Amino acid sequence: MDGFKVIEIKRSVFENNNKEADRVRAMLKEQKTFLLNLMSSPGSGKTTTLKATVARLKDEFKIGVMEADIDGDTDARAMEQSGVKAIQLHTGGMCHLDAGMTEQGLTEFGTEDLDLVVLENVGNLVCPAEFDTGSSKNAMILSVPEGDDKPLKYPLMFSVCDAVLINKIDAKGIFDFDDDAVVERIHRLNPNCEIFFISAKTGEGVDAWCDWLRAQVEQWNG
Amino acid sequence: MDGFKVIEIKRSVFENNNKEADRVRAMLKEQKTFLLNLMSSPGSGKTTTLKATVARLKDEFKIGVMEADIDGDTDARAMEQSGVKAIQLHTGGMCHLDAGMTEQGLTEFGTEDLDLVVLENVGNLVCPAEFDTGSSKNAMILSVPEGDDKPLKYPLMFSVCDAVLINKIDAKGIFDFDDDAVVERIHRLNPNCEIFFISAKTGEGVDAWCDWLRAQVEQWNG
Repeated sequence: MDGFKVIEIKRSVFENNNKEADRVRAMLKEQKTFLLNLMSSPGSGKTTTLKATVARLKDEFKIGVMEADIDGDTDARAMEQSGVKAIQLHTGGMCHLDAGMTEQGLTEFGTEDLDLVVLENVGNLVCPAEFDTGSSKNAMILSVPEGDDKPLKYPLMFSVCDAVLINKIDAKGIFDFDDDAVVERIHRLNPNCEIFFISAKTGEGVDAWCDWLRAQVEQWNG
Repeated sequence: MDGFKVIEIKRSVFENNNKEADRVRAMLKEQKTFLLNLMSSPGSGKTTTLKATVARLKDEFKIGVMEADIDGDTDARAMEQSGVKAIQLHTGGMCHLDAGMTEQGLTEFGTEDLDLVVLENVGNLVCPAEFDTGSSKNAMILSVPEGDDKPLKYPLMFSVCDAVLINKIDAKGIFDFDDDAVVERIHRLNPNCEIFFISAKTGEGVDAWCDWLRAQVEQWNG
């Protein structure tokens, strides 16, 4: 018997997602829970990055992870094995989470005693960018094998994120990826975006990302 | 001045997409044009695979490529430099193409004299799987860095494809990727799916994929 729940999320009943998102955010602020909405393409390394992040922060914060997927439970299983509270959200085929759906997850999960909750959104660079989940901050991962041209093709996603993690930098030797070009493309869309070059696999650069996240959580909860 | 058009696709007016898709398919069959709907995550190598495919088939077929993206024109530019007719479709933020949107592209493109048209769909493993575009066949690319667990997370996409290309096999040395597991996971969802292991970069395996595609085009147009 696994320790994590699998929740089938229902389509939201709220007509005004932005209003609902503000309500969720106020509730989280009140209970001193920071919600990070983590987005990316399928296979960019969200779960591996989360495992590396949790390993560095779990002694300081009470952390929970909500894994949203169309189907499956491999990510929730992996996170639970990392020693954090985890829940699997099934979106029933839906390509994103909105604020109402996020709130269903938060309620089932029970987040009152958590300092940091990470929502691992559905792997998709398009739809999740259009829906405010009620998160405190948004972050995304772009992995080196995906290419440095992605900000040109998915501009909204890069515009709504407070931080972009460039992952799999250990694979740079075999992929053409121009660091300067990607930074310039992201900052043209989003001048204040923080950019971290990391390898979740080797750990390179993960401390700098965790320092930023720690500061955000302390500021929100303080 | 570039030779390719950039078309801003409008939201479809058709209520019944399946009916519209059948109408598009019948029109293409009538004019002996095979339409391949090519789907994948962002950055899996659709454009590089298409360039390798076109290089092998352009002496046999008159080929056109429709590049669908939220924004940008890098892919249409790249395809035109490969010596095939290309058009860029902008989806205005929409995460997929349906049959009505595909037909707008086909009409603007002018496909009557083409034997093979490839629609490079928006990079997304979720939404494009839900909409029949009117294509003759569907194919998708899964790249090695994305991981062998993707059929578990995006089952509908793997279910609707006639062929799956596993790309970037030249990067296998640095990523954990279990060939047997991915084949088993795909065939459990879709027993008749053709699976090709390729490297669009080195050319490995691309001939076998092109042999399959050639046979499909000849059967459709014959």
